Amino acid sequence: MSDASAPPAAQPWALLLEYDGTGFAGWQRQAGPITVQQVLEEAAARLNGGQPVVAAVAGRTDTGVHAEAQVAQIALPRPFGADKLRDALNHHLQPHKVVVLRAAPAPPGWHPRFSAIGRAYRYRILNRPVASPLLAGRVWHVRPTLDVPAMAAAAAHLCGHHDFTTFRASACQASNSWRTLDRLAVRQDGPMIEIVAEARSFLHHQVRNMVGTLAWVGRGRWHPDQVATVLAARDRRAGGPTAPPDGLSLTGVRYPGTVFDA
Amino acid sequence: MSDASAPPAAQPWALLLEYDGTGFAGWQRQAGPITVQQVLEEAAARLNGGQPVVAAVAGRTDTGVHAEAQVAQIALPRPFGADKLRDALNHHLQPHKVVVLRAAPAPPGWHPRFSAIGRAYRYRILNRPVASPLLAGRVWHVRPTLDVPAMAAAAAHLCGHHDFTTFRASACQASNSWRTLDRLAVRQDGPMIEIVAEARSFLHHQVRNMVGTLAWVGRGRWHPDQVATVLAARDRRAGGPTAPPDGLSLTGVRYPGTVFDA
Repeated sequence: MSDASAPPAAQPWALLLEYDGTGFAGWQRQAGPITVQQVLEEAAARLNGGQPVVAAVAGRTDTGVHAEAQVAQIALPRPFGADKLRDALNHHLQPHKVVVLRAAPAPPGWHPRFSAIGRAYRYRILNRPVASPLLAGRVWHVRPTLDVPAMAAAAAHLCGHHDFTTFRASACQASNSWRTLDRLAVRQDGPMIEIVAEARSFLHHQVRNMVGTLAWVGRGRWHPDQVATVLAARDRRAGGPTAPPDGLSLTGVRYPGTVFDA
Repeated sequence: MSDASAPPAAQPWALLLEYDGTGFAGWQRQAGPITVQQVLEEAAARLNGGQPVVAAVAGRTDTGVHAEAQVAQIALPRPFGADKLRDALNHHLQPHKVVVLRAAPAPPGWHPRFSAIGRAYRYRILNRPVASPLLAGRVWHVRPTLDVPAMAAAAAHLCGHHDFTTFRASACQASNSWRTLDRLAVRQDGPMIEIVAEARSFLHHQVRNMVGTLAWVGRGRWHPDQVATVLAARDRRAGGPTAPPDGLSLTGVRYPGTVFDA
């Protein structure tokens, strides 16, 4: 039974976002430094008569971490065409380094975080003697030559269903430290080393902590098999350092069924 | 007959440079805005007891144009190891977005510009509805969908030995407007269109003017064959617009023999 006097239900929208994480204190709203959530919610509020809009997200990226394909959700009472909404949000998002690549009506019951069944990250290490001005803020610059086959061998120890406590930030709030790492691939193209990580979900700092450990293996500090021991320790202090955020980008989120038309 | 009292001859060095053209008024020194030549010469002077050092270059890039592999020459009386010189220059180049990737003793009689027998540029067009914060300043963002096969067909008309007056900046000071364009390839990877141009040398703005014309063909404003007519007109006013500098990068310079060890 509908109440004809009630305001119209807000339309939930799925948004595909790209952003340059440099200059943002990550996704999540906080007092003080600017965040991606804040600028997206402020842009959306401009389309909502100044009324606040709350955005949910698939992956709460950290300070300095980029996204090529983040997925968020907002709800707006006013009707929009999808491309009009995309363009209107992009207009109000300026001059911040965030864009809406696509907007689509969210499927019924869909939530960007809880409906997600896969997340993909890419981490890039520039492995050469000299830093790159053209890739500043986009890569982790490592001077000493890394042993990429050793890194790939170490990565194989991390794939599968494990307790990833060793690679979890002490601030991580997940109730369960078990995750299934579907893919951790290490490949090289000239001085660029790319590490691709895919899982249903990740613990806080998990990718950066795994990359820091792989870099230790690449420098010869650890044998690749040592990573199995480190993983089994279930102790953050047993792992390598946390790689810097610059090299990390959220490159995709998967859902059952299509959210954005191809 | 050597004069034992004369100062030692300066050692000429070949330098391989990468720079982010954003924020530079091009290569060439000028009164006022900062240029790549200026910051390189100032860094070199720091290694020369404050005495001025003059840098020559393979390609005098314009404002906003990037270089992944520019080649320059400086001479310094003081002896250096090649890697030490590279690192010392990079130290003094900070915080400018220029680095020396390699330094090598210049071959006898070698000049970065006059000895060059090939130059390669890459121009990138991001062809999608929404701009990219991660590629800002690195690509030309074009919203309407471009017809890439038409652009490739048009490019074929420009390859070979021609009078390129139509694609030459009015300020171009070259005595001869004939050039041999060895390659002008157009390829697409998702929303990214890459145009690779190779020639012994180019006229001022030639690549950007050719790209602007190819974009007109891609938008359907001109048939690909129209580009042959435009070229034959030998009149800058017959050509398309000048594409913005953001998408352009000098990606390589060739010399007879090896300058930098592989």
